[in-house]
Amino acid sequence: MQIIRFDELKDLIYQIFIKLNVADEKSFTLARIIAESTLDGVNSHGINRLPLLAEYIKQGIVKKEAEPEIILDSGSLKQIDGKFGFGILNAIFATDTVIHSAKQDGIGLAAMRFTNHWHRAGTYGWRAADKGMIFICWTNTIPLVPPYGSKEKIIGNNPFVFAIPRDDGHIVLDMATSQYSVGKIASYARMNKELPEFGGYDADGNLTKNAGEIRHGGRHMPIGLWKGSALTFVLDMVAAVLSGGNSTYRLSREKGIDTGASQIFLAIDPDKFSNGEFRNTITNETIDYFRQIADAENTNIKYPGEETLKRRKHNLENGIPVEKEIFEKVINLKREL
Amino acid sequence: MQIIRFDELKDLIYQIFIKLNVADEKSFTLARIIAESTLDGVNSHGINRLPLLAEYIKQGIVKKEAEPEIILDSGSLKQIDGKFGFGILNAIFATDTVIHSAKQDGIGLAAMRFTNHWHRAGTYGWRAADKGMIFICWTNTIPLVPPYGSKEKIIGNNPFVFAIPRDDGHIVLDMATSQYSVGKIASYARMNKELPEFGGYDADGNLTKNAGEIRHGGRHMPIGLWKGSALTFVLDMVAAVLSGGNSTYRLSREKGIDTGASQIFLAIDPDKFSNGEFRNTITNETIDYFRQIADAENTNIKYPGEETLKRRKHNLENGIPVEKEIFEKVINLKREL
Repeated sequence: MQIIRFDELKDLIYQIFIKLNVADEKSFTLARIIAESTLDGVNSHGINRLPLLAEYIKQGIVKKEAEPEIILDSGSLKQIDGKFGFGILNAIFATDTVIHSAKQDGIGLAAMRFTNHWHRAGTYGWRAADKGMIFICWTNTIPLVPPYGSKEKIIGNNPFVFAIPRDDGHIVLDMATSQYSVGKIASYARMNKELPEFGGYDADGNLTKNAGEIRHGGRHMPIGLWKGSALTFVLDMVAAVLSGGNSTYRLSREKGIDTGASQIFLAIDPDKFSNGEFRNTITNETIDYFRQIADAENTNIKYPGEETLKRRKHNLENGIPVEKEIFEKVINLKREL
Repeated sequence: MQIIRFDELKDLIYQIFIKLNVADEKSFTLARIIAESTLDGVNSHGINRLPLLAEYIKQGIVKKEAEPEIILDSGSLKQIDGKFGFGILNAIFATDTVIHSAKQDGIGLAAMRFTNHWHRAGTYGWRAADKGMIFICWTNTIPLVPPYGSKEKIIGNNPFVFAIPRDDGHIVLDMATSQYSVGKIASYARMNKELPEFGGYDADGNLTKNAGEIRHGGRHMPIGLWKGSALTFVLDMVAAVLSGGNSTYRLSREKGIDTGASQIFLAIDPDKFSNGEFRNTITNETIDYFRQIADAENTNIKYPGEETLKRRKHNLENGIPVEKEIFEKVINLKREL
């Protein structure tokens, strides 16, 4: 592992976007978001994904000039065309749009079509929770996982987010519907480390903890088997239907190019119902109770988002660990541009 | 298995409610919903749960006179007090409330507090889809499952529903966040049958397919382990925060009595964005593609809701299979009242 300081990483990424002729303001925001995801320990959707994004910009798959547009506006319900622009910037636009609706009307939902990979899903949850919102979002993806009982990768892993604002640290769930993310399996395979739990099937169809076997000839598994298969399916269908955009099936016709996703963003303003007091009480007492149980059992139960805040603090103070191989790739990328 | 015809079952359940001094109209609706759930093959939340409901009515835990009330109304966003009335009737009220909002404004969300068990979650999804709505709902529950890494049952299994209307049969996902529902584990244990997949841990903490071991001394497991734990946690928190009601932690203080849940209902009118043509096209082409793959592989991939429709049709024609033990309990219940 290479250790790099947050500001240094942000600046490095910013310079790469500038060299790619991305507008200054866009470069600045993209660099901040990607550096923040890495700071929070989500390297797979932070710096690790930067080389692919650079490639997509060069090939015009991600259209660096595009701006998202609200194409249908039915009050609290909006449809946005992402116009194949930056997934991160489009998702920020959609998040801010639904927050604005929720502040006015209590609730806002936006369905976005024709966008690109939004990198870390949690980014938008933290952003909305910082603004006091209860927030749910999800995206469909290219096909990555076979549904339960099948061998063909025909469903996405459709990451989704639930965020609940809380004075002592927001609750933010950011998860994909595969047992491990594609990035995490790749990372374990590179490090030749065994997964903590069954993460998929080997080539013979047996459950395995071997990331390399899952990656080569094997297959990922959805959380809860048939349950995660079904959850992924409905997340995809709702996103495609409401956005008027692509389903995972339509994305599959792009033959591995990860572009044109459909996404849902939902914000609810809890302060329309109560002041923050009840919200803090009810979340704190549950979290305190979990801690009591964990202490009594000497186990390690965390609420969603807890580890992220700890890692953020730790990495801000001590620098961010980045895989050497990835770091060299990024340094070379900057040099070659 | 005992075979009983739909109308016969509905009438039997109706008579039990009447004997319990439940108002005629309520008895009629409750009997229909419980019979329909059984017709669809969800016996665990159909007839199997009737003896417990009867007990709760007798003890006044379910208040048979109570009517739900909208206590806060911020346009598309509503808070409802369930007043400890019938969970099924409260949930129908909330579903119809958000459908009404969605027809007007495109979207409607209601958070309900102090309600009772809604029996089959899918009931409300089928109802909303029949009215052309995209619909999401969930409930929290009493603690039933330990979070990942723990041995204490401190999280619920928080069933949730996604429904998408479709001309050739709605897509309706109805799932709990435990790998198998409590009712299904109980049912497999009674039949002394092995679960098709790992369903939890035995008393020694090993993954097992033995339902009896999970039920006695062992523990259920959340779908996707830490992922299902976290999903359950946020579903609970959003429901409790927005309804101003109970969290699973607060419900745990009722010492096993299943009352006072918090629930979320969300309807979106897809026709605000497009006519049904796109919706049918995009859902059909995905389902057709899945069928092609399944045929090629000779596997059995279903979309959520497909089996339910088949079972409904089959059981309407051939009668509904009900466990003998359960059926005798219900017959005795009627006799004793």
